[in-house]
Amino acid sequence: MTSTLTDDAMRALRTTSTATLTTLLFKHGLRNTFLQGVRLLGSGGAQMVGPAYTLRYIPAREDLDHIGVFQDHGHPQRKAVEDIPAGHVLVIDSRGDASAASAGSILVTRMMVRGVAGIVTDGGLRDSHEIAALAIPSYCQGPSAPTNLIKHHAADLNVPIGCGGVPVYPGDIMVGDAEGVVVIPRGIAEAVAHEGRAQTLFEDFVTEQVLAGRGIFGLYPPTDPATDGQFKAWCSAKHPAP
Amino acid sequence: MTSTLTDDAMRALRTTSTATLTTLLFKHGLRNTFLQGVRLLGSGGAQMVGPAYTLRYIPAREDLDHIGVFQDHGHPQRKAVEDIPAGHVLVIDSRGDASAASAGSILVTRMMVRGVAGIVTDGGLRDSHEIAALAIPSYCQGPSAPTNLIKHHAADLNVPIGCGGVPVYPGDIMVGDAEGVVVIPRGIAEAVAHEGRAQTLFEDFVTEQVLAGRGIFGLYPPTDPATDGQFKAWCSAKHPAP
Amino acid sequence: MTSTLTDDAMRALRTTSTATLTTLLFKHGLRNTFLQGVRLLGSGGAQMVGPAYTLRYIPAREDLDHIGVFQDHGHPQRKAVEDIPAGHVLVIDSRGDASAASAGSILVTRMMVRGVAGIVTDGGLRDSHEIAALAIPSYCQGPSAPTNLIKHHAADLNVPIGCGGVPVYPGDIMVGDAEGVVVIPRGIAEAVAHEGRAQTLFEDFVTEQVLAGRGIFGLYPPTDPATDGQFKAWCSAKHPAP
Amino acid sequence: MTSTLTDDAMRALRTTSTATLTTLLFKHGLRNTFLQGVRLLGSGGAQMVGPAYTLRYIPAREDLDHIGVFQDHGHPQRKAVEDIPAGHVLVIDSRGDASAASAGSILVTRMMVRGVAGIVTDGGLRDSHEIAALAIPSYCQGPSAPTNLIKHHAADLNVPIGCGGVPVYPGDIMVGDAEGVVVIPRGIAEAVAHEGRAQTLFEDFVTEQVLAGRGIFGLYPPTDPATDGQFKAWCSAKHPAP
Amino acid sequence: MTSTLTDDAMRALRTTSTATLTTLLFKHGLRNTFLQGVRLLGSGGAQMVGPAYTLRYIPAREDLDHIGVFQDHGHPQRKAVEDIPAGHVLVIDSRGDASAASAGSILVTRMMVRGVAGIVTDGGLRDSHEIAALAIPSYCQGPSAPTNLIKHHAADLNVPIGCGGVPVYPGDIMVGDAEGVVVIPRGIAEAVAHEGRAQTLFEDFVTEQVLAGRGIFGLYPPTDPATDGQFKAWCSAKHPAP
Amino acid sequence: MTSTLTDDAMRALRTTSTATLTTLLFKHGLRNTFLQGVRLLGSGGAQMVGPAYTLRYIPAREDLDHIGVFQDHGHPQRKAVEDIPAGHVLVIDSRGDASAASAGSILVTRMMVRGVAGIVTDGGLRDSHEIAALAIPSYCQGPSAPTNLIKHHAADLNVPIGCGGVPVYPGDIMVGDAEGVVVIPRGIAEAVAHEGRAQTLFEDFVTEQVLAGRGIFGLYPPTDPATDGQFKAWCSAKHPAP
Repeated sequence: MTSTLTDDAMRALRTTSTATLTTLLFKHGLRNTFLQGVRLLGSGGAQMVGPAYTLRYIPAREDLDHIGVFQDHGHPQRKAVEDIPAGHVLVIDSRGDASAASAGSILVTRMMVRGVAGIVTDGGLRDSHEIAALAIPSYCQGPSAPTNLIKHHAADLNVPIGCGGVPVYPGDIMVGDAEGVVVIPRGIAEAVAHEGRAQTLFEDFVTEQVLAGRGIFGLYPPTDPATDGQFKAWCSAKHPAP
Repeated sequence: MTSTLTDDAMRALRTTSTATLTTLLFKHGLRNTFLQGVRLLGSGGAQMVGPAYTLRYIPAREDLDHIGVFQDHGHPQRKAVEDIPAGHVLVIDSRGDASAASAGSILVTRMMVRGVAGIVTDGGLRDSHEIAALAIPSYCQGPSAPTNLIKHHAADLNVPIGCGGVPVYPGDIMVGDAEGVVVIPRGIAEAVAHEGRAQTLFEDFVTEQVLAGRGIFGLYPPTDPATDGQFKAWCSAKHPAP
Repeated sequence: MTSTLTDDAMRALRTTSTATLTTLLFKHGLRNTFLQGVRLLGSGGAQMVGPAYTLRYIPAREDLDHIGVFQDHGHPQRKAVEDIPAGHVLVIDSRGDASAASAGSILVTRMMVRGVAGIVTDGGLRDSHEIAALAIPSYCQGPSAPTNLIKHHAADLNVPIGCGGVPVYPGDIMVGDAEGVVVIPRGIAEAVAHEGRAQTLFEDFVTEQVLAGRGIFGLYPPTDPATDGQFKAWCSAKHPAP
Repeated sequence: MTSTLTDDAMRALRTTSTATLTTLLFKHGLRNTFLQGVRLLGSGGAQMVGPAYTLRYIPAREDLDHIGVFQDHGHPQRKAVEDIPAGHVLVIDSRGDASAASAGSILVTRMMVRGVAGIVTDGGLRDSHEIAALAIPSYCQGPSAPTNLIKHHAADLNVPIGCGGVPVYPGDIMVGDAEGVVVIPRGIAEAVAHEGRAQTLFEDFVTEQVLAGRGIFGLYPPTDPATDGQFKAWCSAKHPAP
Repeated sequence: MTSTLTDDAMRALRTTSTATLTTLLFKHGLRNTFLQGVRLLGSGGAQMVGPAYTLRYIPAREDLDHIGVFQDHGHPQRKAVEDIPAGHVLVIDSRGDASAASAGSILVTRMMVRGVAGIVTDGGLRDSHEIAALAIPSYCQGPSAPTNLIKHHAADLNVPIGCGGVPVYPGDIMVGDAEGVVVIPRGIAEAVAHEGRAQTLFEDFVTEQVLAGRGIFGLYPPTDPATDGQFKAWCSAKHPAP
Repeated sequence: MTSTLTDDAMRALRTTSTATLTTLLFKHGLRNTFLQGVRLLGSGGAQMVGPAYTLRYIPAREDLDHIGVFQDHGHPQRKAVEDIPAGHVLVIDSRGDASAASAGSILVTRMMVRGVAGIVTDGGLRDSHEIAALAIPSYCQGPSAPTNLIKHHAADLNVPIGCGGVPVYPGDIMVGDAEGVVVIPRGIAEAVAHEGRAQTLFEDFVTEQVLAGRGIFGLYPPTDPATDGQFKAWCSAKHPAP
């Protein structure tokens, strides 16, 4: 489950948009990698990147999910908050049910203090406006005040889950920006990171050209043979060799 | 996980409707026990009763869920079909996604031959008309032709799951009739079974009275003190002591 | 609230399909008259026709909606069953929520015995297979075992409601066939009934012509001037004057 | 747009289930071929097979979609009914909106008389019980009484459409059985038909084996080397060479 | 229907989050108290607190709900705006239908001028950006331009309703913050208000501790016996006795 | 398809809210003119006004919708971006499916540079935060990173479409503000524009009166005969004749 991503790949992923990543994953044959219905609380800051640490919820049952369960240090939700390694992303399978919260501001604050890279749930988050102001990227379906006990039972930790309709395996690389969250299977994450850096650079070039009045034909995609040379020239001008 | 239900309780559950059972579970403080959106294929025969044996699906991923996976005897769906004990009910968490099948007629036929008590999924079933004709109660959200590989990855066996929005723990008692499926926590199943027999008898009495022209006030619920005596007399007449 | 529909109009409505009625109501400027998502339990028999007697549900609250409420003869659901006049249709606003039942077989049996013309809910019905076998047309979103107390609180009787997304005023004429249920405002019900008889006759003629191989152009609608004469001749042949 | 399917392929498709076809199409790299939410009216008879003839609906507008539009012989819905070649299947893109009908019994009767192979819509059908009794397979989301004018405007004929979330190009081969409808791109239909015959034969063999008590491992899929020989022997026994 | 809430309770509710209130109501046995799908327009200011004054909508009917209805001073929507007492919250049951507006900026402005405490609907609001800028908290499912006449008929005032799937009785205490709206039954509102003040104080203490690096075990919930003393000391330090 | 709207009408529409326009269209007999579920990215600036240029998507098919399709200059999405006349609004029928993007920032930037008046889709937009910052109003169901190829196939240009459940004919006038988007049939757009200016003026007067403490009865609607004179006086004071 340990992520073996290089620092260079981590840096590349921090500057590659989820839009670009979904296109790259599509080229790798993966179509279903963007978490549906999951959005960032607040206006965000640094991009979220980190390996997935998963928590699975099933529907609650009145006799099992009473207010006393949190006294147990082994309760998976509480254990997750204290056990998730720094730099990882907590990903919660809430079965897409946001009628109750998956977590609240105290737990998210604790994870922020512990150096956790982010939290993602396809359910709700409570105290959402406090969470939006914290220095930890937090993604959910929407604000939802009710305590998780009303709808969710924390079942287990670090098993493969679904979140937002997408499979998430522990250790997969989660990347989040203002648009949402994408899952990169750990086996191809290093390659995708480097492809992402190249593609981002090319799209920066294209955007500059389009803003300057150039049409998209021949440019995007670069079917005009001249485009490639122009791009290389642009790259050299931007990062001149010593 | 072994069910310790007595034969007498099993017999009682075979003649108690899911409607009656949900009311009894409501009296036990449990509101969410009826699987939503799950219905019987075919017109049914004997009532389904048996302990849950669970199979959990997560969303599929193109590189992992190819046609070759079924060559692995450890594949959880195939293992489930051969390992589930006779008399148990296979309950599949398909995340309520019926856009692909959870299983098809060959696997259901195999379970029928092995003496499995039933199959329940909140996804789809393929070859649904063949399955409807088999002598094994089969419940799903609806017919769905596509192979499960298109949407589902079989993740694990005999863990707590959600099915139709209801928590199902391995060993919980599943009861199904023409209306649908109810889950009885194993710890109270014996008690609920006996309450079910009594309540069914009383409702048979009430129905007979109503068909004979009696109003519901005082009868249902039996707030008229005379009703209790009439019920006892009716019981005696039906099952006279030797 | 008394319906002043003539016997002749009642007879006409018993043989006019809901499809034909929605077209006639469309011509009267009413587009939203067919209850969405509401279907007949069982395979039906005689067509349902009768004025609406309404029951309104709101969401349940745990402290108010306990098992003891049915001991009160003033409870609106129970009062409805005993107070609705014979020949009327009980229409329940269940807010489209079929996760619990709106009623069960004992209450529906009582209404059948009392001569009620039908029951319609946009929620569920429990004991649905028993109800399907009763001699009273019963319409719902689908079978649902849980007692109404789990989701519904009976709030009041004979107020205007919504059912299946359609406004229903007490006294409006409800017509139900195998396809579903249409609501005819009481003020135009007599006129619509007579239009229905004429349109049904014309469509019978058209169907006969189409089965005999005639194309629809000029016939349906009857833009060919000859069609009208053919229809009149057909009518005369079917019902020759004495 | 003419289908060049051989008679032999047509025969093969008439005996291959939609479940088997979706698996074969999955092997061809196509995952989204089964129309979601579309089901057969009635209990069906012969399997539906034929090339698609498409009709596209957009939302209605009150000033354009009045009762008078059907007087125009060029109205796409009416033109479709008279123009669709015998043996073809009318496929209607109703945007998945079944709150009004896509067509009714008179038009479906006319198509039956004209030898049309079937009708498929992801909206509703009115007079659904009459249609269910006709000798033409008819698929829809469900019964719906209101005239199409209330929600639909017939926009054009024989353009590529979506139906039940699946792309349908004019001339694609539509196959329907009791489970639902699958779309086979015309370019691979001949190949898929022959693969379907072979796969159906193998699954008949497997089912017979399973009913006789054999387990699925080694048999389904046939990873046991002996299985292939047994299958060939079974085939020979069933269809002995002269 | 008069609310007898003390000024002290009102003050307490103005500083207690809806998240905290749902937990307290859960402890009182109430699970369904947070309005689903209802959110604040604008970024909000002071918290909304006040007793509910209800308005009930049913689906519109073309002949009854024409543009002329607002000339009637008895029209329930208009009457509500002029009759609702200052300090109360207008709560509208729009059946969760936001395809048309429940009200617009002129009516909301009038209520603001009249001292109304807030407006809540599970439908839409039009002129939503003007409303968002007004000094009155306004909650809805989302912006929606169309006039209410297109979908809604104002049926009656101050009856029990459902809003966002939650029961609301006239006089119940509505509390709204940036997360959403919670309903407190009037009978327990005074008690819940005081519990809310205590719980808010404790969570402020916990948050301070967590930000300082303390783990949640023993602290939240306070299972460590020392926590209680630390909390008391923190309280004393914050509010030293004179 | 050329819009013949006068400059004066264009100016009027730039200052008339979509809320006011839906009411005016309702008076013209049109109820379904506001695009459901479509909202502005960013906080907007100048109001969007322009004739519709349409693009129609159908569901994608794996063999047809590969990454290479954009090399074809005739690909309808790319052709739309280069062909749409300045001042027009690109309206995309994405079948309400926002699980993939309808377009991204490079194409929207190109349209901005070309003087396009706006973009509207009932699907998603990718690079949504970049788009929100561009000087072109962009409306969608929500941010969505995946490339359109995953779900959409661009089928054709400038045919009648549905968008957000509303019919859109090429050349219809699209108006968008912070609340959403309304479609005005081109035949009545000039008239509606002038009605909009008058109604906006009257509502400005009403709002001023309400802020000054006046009640709505007699004022809104102006059933008090004095209101009309007051409005005229207010108009004269605001725009005194020379």
